[in-house]
Amino acid sequence: MAELIQPRVLKGFRDFLPESEIERALLIETLTRVFRTSGFVPIDTPALEYSEILLRKSDGETEKQVFRFEDNGGRDVSLRFDLTVPFARFVAEHREELYFPFKRYHIAKVWRGEKPQAGRYREFVQCDFDIVGSDSPAVDFEILALMKASLSAIGVKGVTIRLSHRGTFNRFIAKLELADKSEDILRTVDKLAKVGEAEVLSQLAEFAGNDRAKQILTYVKGAGDGPENFGKTLNLIEEMAGGPADDTKRLRDIHAFMTETGIADSFVLDPSITRGLDYYTGVVYETFLDELPSIGSVCSGGRYDNLAGLYMKDRVPGVGASIGLDRLLAGLAELGKKNTKASFTDAAVFCQNEADMGAYQRCAASLRAAGIACEVFPDAKKMNQQYAWAEKKSIAWGVAPEADGKLTVKNLATRETIQGLTVEEAAKKIRG
Amino acid sequence: MAELIQPRVLKGFRDFLPESEIERALLIETLTRVFRTSGFVPIDTPALEYSEILLRKSDGETEKQVFRFEDNGGRDVSLRFDLTVPFARFVAEHREELYFPFKRYHIAKVWRGEKPQAGRYREFVQCDFDIVGSDSPAVDFEILALMKASLSAIGVKGVTIRLSHRGTFNRFIAKLELADKSEDILRTVDKLAKVGEAEVLSQLAEFAGNDRAKQILTYVKGAGDGPENFGKTLNLIEEMAGGPADDTKRLRDIHAFMTETGIADSFVLDPSITRGLDYYTGVVYETFLDELPSIGSVCSGGRYDNLAGLYMKDRVPGVGASIGLDRLLAGLAELGKKNTKASFTDAAVFCQNEADMGAYQRCAASLRAAGIACEVFPDAKKMNQQYAWAEKKSIAWGVAPEADGKLTVKNLATRETIQGLTVEEAAKKIRG
Repeated sequence: MAELIQPRVLKGFRDFLPESEIERALLIETLTRVFRTSGFVPIDTPALEYSEILLRKSDGETEKQVFRFEDNGGRDVSLRFDLTVPFARFVAEHREELYFPFKRYHIAKVWRGEKPQAGRYREFVQCDFDIVGSDSPAVDFEILALMKASLSAIGVKGVTIRLSHRGTFNRFIAKLELADKSEDILRTVDKLAKVGEAEVLSQLAEFAGNDRAKQILTYVKGAGDGPENFGKTLNLIEEMAGGPADDTKRLRDIHAFMTETGIADSFVLDPSITRGLDYYTGVVYETFLDELPSIGSVCSGGRYDNLAGLYMKDRVPGVGASIGLDRLLAGLAELGKKNTKASFTDAAVFCQNEADMGAYQRCAASLRAAGIACEVFPDAKKMNQQYAWAEKKSIAWGVAPEADGKLTVKNLATRETIQGLTVEEAAKKIRG
Repeated sequence: MAELIQPRVLKGFRDFLPESEIERALLIETLTRVFRTSGFVPIDTPALEYSEILLRKSDGETEKQVFRFEDNGGRDVSLRFDLTVPFARFVAEHREELYFPFKRYHIAKVWRGEKPQAGRYREFVQCDFDIVGSDSPAVDFEILALMKASLSAIGVKGVTIRLSHRGTFNRFIAKLELADKSEDILRTVDKLAKVGEAEVLSQLAEFAGNDRAKQILTYVKGAGDGPENFGKTLNLIEEMAGGPADDTKRLRDIHAFMTETGIADSFVLDPSITRGLDYYTGVVYETFLDELPSIGSVCSGGRYDNLAGLYMKDRVPGVGASIGLDRLLAGLAELGKKNTKASFTDAAVFCQNEADMGAYQRCAASLRAAGIACEVFPDAKKMNQQYAWAEKKSIAWGVAPEADGKLTVKNLATRETIQGLTVEEAAKKIRG
């Protein structure tokens, strides 16, 4: 006999056992329902693409993390590392078949060879939603409103979505004559929560001088945290950036839509939010769980000027966000808000006598036809073994066929037993 | 400016535009519902695994078709080419965490570097369902019943599921003293539909002689096609195989369960079905669309003695089937039974005046809260452009907010317009 192979998965990869997979599936189903209700349609793209397509714009860091290889036909191919680059390629390739504004959602696996660590995996699910083909502040607002609606629908009520505008920030640093230091400023400001004001101020002063360092700090702190300070902070940064312009008008429009639809209390104007990624050009945002800010942003995104510029001449502006499903699941677990179950089965028919298997199967089939998820234990094992199996699957009800075609129904927790029910009566009892 | 990259996907890979993706998603949602109603739970496994795990048992043909490479850490890895081998590894790895009988479904992408041709892709979705940990004929029956229920649920009424038993066949050819010619016989018999009886007879005679060739043909033809001949064919092959044994008793049990649950008329005992794959050891089956048998089997499977034997010593018997989603989608399209739509959106709020955008957004939000999938056209473009967009998304209703908070609802096909509705009245009209 051949030697056994040790069953194991690759480092950074995971199996999902039923309970975890059910939890993930229920989350995805809820998000899908919300996306559809807001007019978004699904698309899919291949997991594997030409490396040339996926990696053209990425920096060296991304490239190192990509699963890239030569296929049997000698093609240089890579597994997708996000859903944004494939979407850009998709829009360019199918622009004649699409209509604009085009709203799509895409929930699918991506792969990155990152160093595995707590909450970081080499295979994970991304959940992206974007609106492309419109410059309107209305679609900026729609993505933000959808972020709020999505998190609400999955039971996360206390969220704060923090937004700002890259354009206002760029005007501000240009006015300080620090436009060429943009990257340094972003990198330093990003450490605010971690290292504190004094340290950030001292680091900024190194290349900006004391006075401008203080101004930068004043800018990124705004006029106070909290949704009630949205307007005041907007006035402050507008002034520091040199007065009204398209960017601040857009923020004002977006805030007006939030107020009008009654969701403004979840949104904070936070000028320290900048999002490192170079393709964002407009409004940018991150989302934090109020009860668990430490896990970081669970949903981020922003506006980009030109999604598919690498692949086509036409400019396609867009705005979108991405939910970090794994981080969100970890957060929900930590908050005790896991929404999972061991199975979907409502009722079990136990096997007391193998000769009656035909009657058991008929009983289960009739309950399924009445809308009850039902299954039969297939072997005449000891009853305590069968009950243990039902408990593992969290099955609440037992059902047994009677000689006359009626059913006996048993509540497996309370042991309450009711005899002589029709299929409809039994289904009603189990449902109720 | 950098040169544009031509947007394109790899040969044998596909994008799914909204209409195709919606069709696939609806199909998967229906199948998922049926699986859950029958007590099956979902699992997931990584797309990428150690090549040693995936390829140990496969033949050279499989190995050539696999996307296999060395990752950045020097590991020999492969993309999964089916969902059965990963499931075997999964059962071995998690046997202490699972309960038996264990019923799982898994709907996910697999990759094969096959020569692309009509209906053959290098990336496709498999839909597997298996019951492991029970030898009972009841679970053989349950998989067969689930195949029937799944196809029924997606609107395919006319199907014939053809089954047989490898054990009966093996007894039969052992009796003919042709056990060592099993592969040759299977390969020859498999051509029956394509090359006809005379040619098969002549090819069989080459290694089995005329008399035994005729016996083989008699065996695989059975006592006549059609569900009504199940019993007669069973008697015939039982006798030709040397009399009653476990295999024929099992077929008889399965047939009794089918009769008892009223689904026997979809099942044909067809001794010519053998399924090439060497891991099947018991009942095997294939499924054909009555109106479109030419596309081949849309759902196949069978019983295997020892699922995870490569990875653990304990023997885990099982039975399962796999729906060929792409073939099924192609078949449904050919039969004019496509179940798709351009979007999920019920109603659109058109943009007649950008200054009213806040009211449009409030109107859409209130309809969504009432269960209507609704979206706003975000830009004040010409009305015919906005209507064209609504038509592309198959949106049936237009909604406009009135000054007093009431809504005007317009049927976009008939142009019927109703004014002065509350949100609830509008939602009812749109739903109705």
